[in-house]
Amino acid sequence: MSRFLIDRYQDIEEYTPGEQPQNMDQFIKLNTNESPYPPSPGVLAVLNSGEAAKLRLYCDPDCGVLTKKLAELYGVKPENVFFSNGSDDILNFIFMIFCGEETPVAFPAISYGFYKVYAQLHRTDALKIPLKEDFSIDYKDYCGLGRTIIIANPNAPTGQTLGLAEIEEIARTNPDNVVVIDEAYVDFGAESAVPLTKKYDNLLVVQTFSKSRSMAGARLGFAIGHKDLIADLTKIKYSTNPYNINRLTQTAACAAIDEDAYYKENGRKIRETREYTVKKLEEMGFEIIPSKANFIFIKNDQIDGEKLYTVLKERKILIRHFTDPAIAQYNRVTIGTPEQMDAFLNEVKNILREEE
Amino acid sequence: MSRFLIDRYQDIEEYTPGEQPQNMDQFIKLNTNESPYPPSPGVLAVLNSGEAAKLRLYCDPDCGVLTKKLAELYGVKPENVFFSNGSDDILNFIFMIFCGEETPVAFPAISYGFYKVYAQLHRTDALKIPLKEDFSIDYKDYCGLGRTIIIANPNAPTGQTLGLAEIEEIARTNPDNVVVIDEAYVDFGAESAVPLTKKYDNLLVVQTFSKSRSMAGARLGFAIGHKDLIADLTKIKYSTNPYNINRLTQTAACAAIDEDAYYKENGRKIRETREYTVKKLEEMGFEIIPSKANFIFIKNDQIDGEKLYTVLKERKILIRHFTDPAIAQYNRVTIGTPEQMDAFLNEVKNILREEE
Repeated sequence: MSRFLIDRYQDIEEYTPGEQPQNMDQFIKLNTNESPYPPSPGVLAVLNSGEAAKLRLYCDPDCGVLTKKLAELYGVKPENVFFSNGSDDILNFIFMIFCGEETPVAFPAISYGFYKVYAQLHRTDALKIPLKEDFSIDYKDYCGLGRTIIIANPNAPTGQTLGLAEIEEIARTNPDNVVVIDEAYVDFGAESAVPLTKKYDNLLVVQTFSKSRSMAGARLGFAIGHKDLIADLTKIKYSTNPYNINRLTQTAACAAIDEDAYYKENGRKIRETREYTVKKLEEMGFEIIPSKANFIFIKNDQIDGEKLYTVLKERKILIRHFTDPAIAQYNRVTIGTPEQMDAFLNEVKNILREEE
Repeated sequence: MSRFLIDRYQDIEEYTPGEQPQNMDQFIKLNTNESPYPPSPGVLAVLNSGEAAKLRLYCDPDCGVLTKKLAELYGVKPENVFFSNGSDDILNFIFMIFCGEETPVAFPAISYGFYKVYAQLHRTDALKIPLKEDFSIDYKDYCGLGRTIIIANPNAPTGQTLGLAEIEEIARTNPDNVVVIDEAYVDFGAESAVPLTKKYDNLLVVQTFSKSRSMAGARLGFAIGHKDLIADLTKIKYSTNPYNINRLTQTAACAAIDEDAYYKENGRKIRETREYTVKKLEEMGFEIIPSKANFIFIKNDQIDGEKLYTVLKERKILIRHFTDPAIAQYNRVTIGTPEQMDAFLNEVKNILREEE
C-alpha cells in the first residue's frame, strides 16, 4: 500500500480469482467453470487478420450491432440490454449505483465471493442470509426485505436453483428495491428470469458469455431489464470507461449469437456429463448438492476437503477449494469433457483407495 | 434515470466520446486520434483461430507475460507496471483512490474532458487551472499545490508539452501528493517522465496502446510508477474486475512490443505528416498551436469553428469540435496518412473559398 491511498480503500479485501497456472497445458483445469468446448466455428473464423487490422480504430462504445442481435435473441428491445466488460463489471456497477451507504444490500451468505468485496468497496451494509441446511436458498427470506437483493441463480458454488415463481415473489414484494438475478450459469438447466423483467421494473438479470458461450477470455457480460435501469448502467459506464468492450469481442459475440444452436448443444453435453459424473461420484460415497450449473459441489467424509484439492493438484487436476469454514469440506468441480471427467474420477478413486 | 439510482450518482454528467459513425468506411476519420496505420504484422499474424479457440479460458488477471515484456522495454521492474482496460480505466482508478472527498485534485482547465467527469464521479474538489494565453501550461501553477495533480503531456486537445525539468519540479514540490502524467500522446514527440518515476515515489505515468501502437480497439492502458502505487491500483482492480484485459489483447500487445521498431517508424511518419499539414494550413491562414501529438488544434478567423467541423462532416471528413466556449473556434484534427491529409486540406481549401 502506498502512503497516498485514501482512507476509504485502505481496508478493502480484494477478491481472489481461481488459480490460472502459467503451465496450464499440463493441467486438467476444472476450477473456474470454463466451458471445455471452444467457441463456435463462426467465432474462430471471424477472428482473423482482417479484423485485427481494424484494431487501430476504437470500438463502438454502444455495442450497437451486438445489442440489437442479443435483444432479438432474448425477445427484448435494445433499450433493455446493457453490455460491459464481463459480468463482474456489471455487478460492480450494480453495487455502486443501486446500493450504497443509505441503500443496504442482501445476498446469500454462501454465494459468489465477489458480492462481499463489492459491498465493502461501495460501503453498503450487507445482510448475508444463511442458506438452508441442504444449501438451498429459502426465497421467503428475501420477500419484503426492503434491501437491494442479489441472488445467483443457479447459486455458486452450490449449483442450487430457485424457480421462476419464487423469483417473481421476491421481485413483487420488494417493489422499491432492485432485485438482481445473476444468471452466469443459467444455460445449464435453470430457468431464466428474463421474461419477468417485462413485468417488474425493479428486476435486473445479469448474464455472461464466459460460461455457456465459451468466451471467458473475451470478457463480455450483459444485463437485461427495464430501460431506466439500463440507462443508469449506461450512464455509469460512460462516466468511467465507455470503450470497455474491445472490437474483437464484439465481433466474436455477434458470431456466437448467430450460432446459438452450437452452444445449446454444448450445454446439453455438459448436463449429460454432469449427470454421469454425479452418478460415478455417488458410487464412491460422495455427497453432491443437486446442481443445475456446469459445476458440482461435492464432499466425501472419507477425505478432508482441502486434502482432496491438494492431492489432485499435485496430480495435475485443478478443482476449486474455498477456505470458508462452512464449506471447507466441499470442493467445487467444473464439468469438463467426458474424457476429462473420467481422468478426474479415476484419480479420485485412487486417492480414496490410498486413504483407506 | 430509474427511481433506484442512489442520490450520489444522479447528477453525474457522463463523458461524450468522439463520434463513431456506423457507416465509418465512408468517412475520412480524423476525430479520435487513432493511428492511420494498422497494427504490426506480428499482431495480425497472432490473432488467428488458434488463439480464438483459447477464448474459452479466462485470461491471466496479472497479465504476467505482458507485464514482464513491457517492463523490459521501459527499463523498469514488473512490480512498477500496471495494466488495465484502457488508460481511461486507470484514470478512473486514480481519481477513485488517490483523490476523493478529502484529497482534492488539480488539472488544466482545458485538457482531456474525462478528468472533470471523474472528479465529479468521485466527489473530489477539482481545481481547474487556466492555461496561459498561448494555450501552454505554466508548470509553476502546479508547484507546491498540495493536491493530487493530473497533467496530460502532451496536453489534449492542444498538443502542447511540458519539459522533463518542469515535470520534475512539480513532482518534487508536491511530495505528499500523487502527480499523474497522462502520456497518451507521448510517442509523437514529447519526452516521457518514466525515468523520473525511479526518483519520485509520488509520480505515476499513464500510457496507452490506443494511439502510437494502433490498438485503440483492443483496450489496453498501462501505468508505470513506484511499486506501492502499482500495488494500490492492483488492489482496486482485484476489487472491481480482475479479468479486465482479454486474452487476445494480451497476446496482441506482446506481439506489438516485439515489433517496437514498426511503431517507432509509424510515429516518425505521423510527425512528418503533421509538419506537412501544419505548413499547408498555415499557408491557408490557420493559427495552429505547436503540437507534439498525433493531432493539431487549429482555427481560422475566416470561418467559425463549428461551421468548419459541420461542413467537413457533410463532406465525409470527421474532425473533433468541442463546445466549451473557450475553444469553440478551434477544431482538433487527428493526423492521418499523407493521402488522408491531402484530401482534408483540399476540402478545407474548398470550404474557405466558398466562405469568401
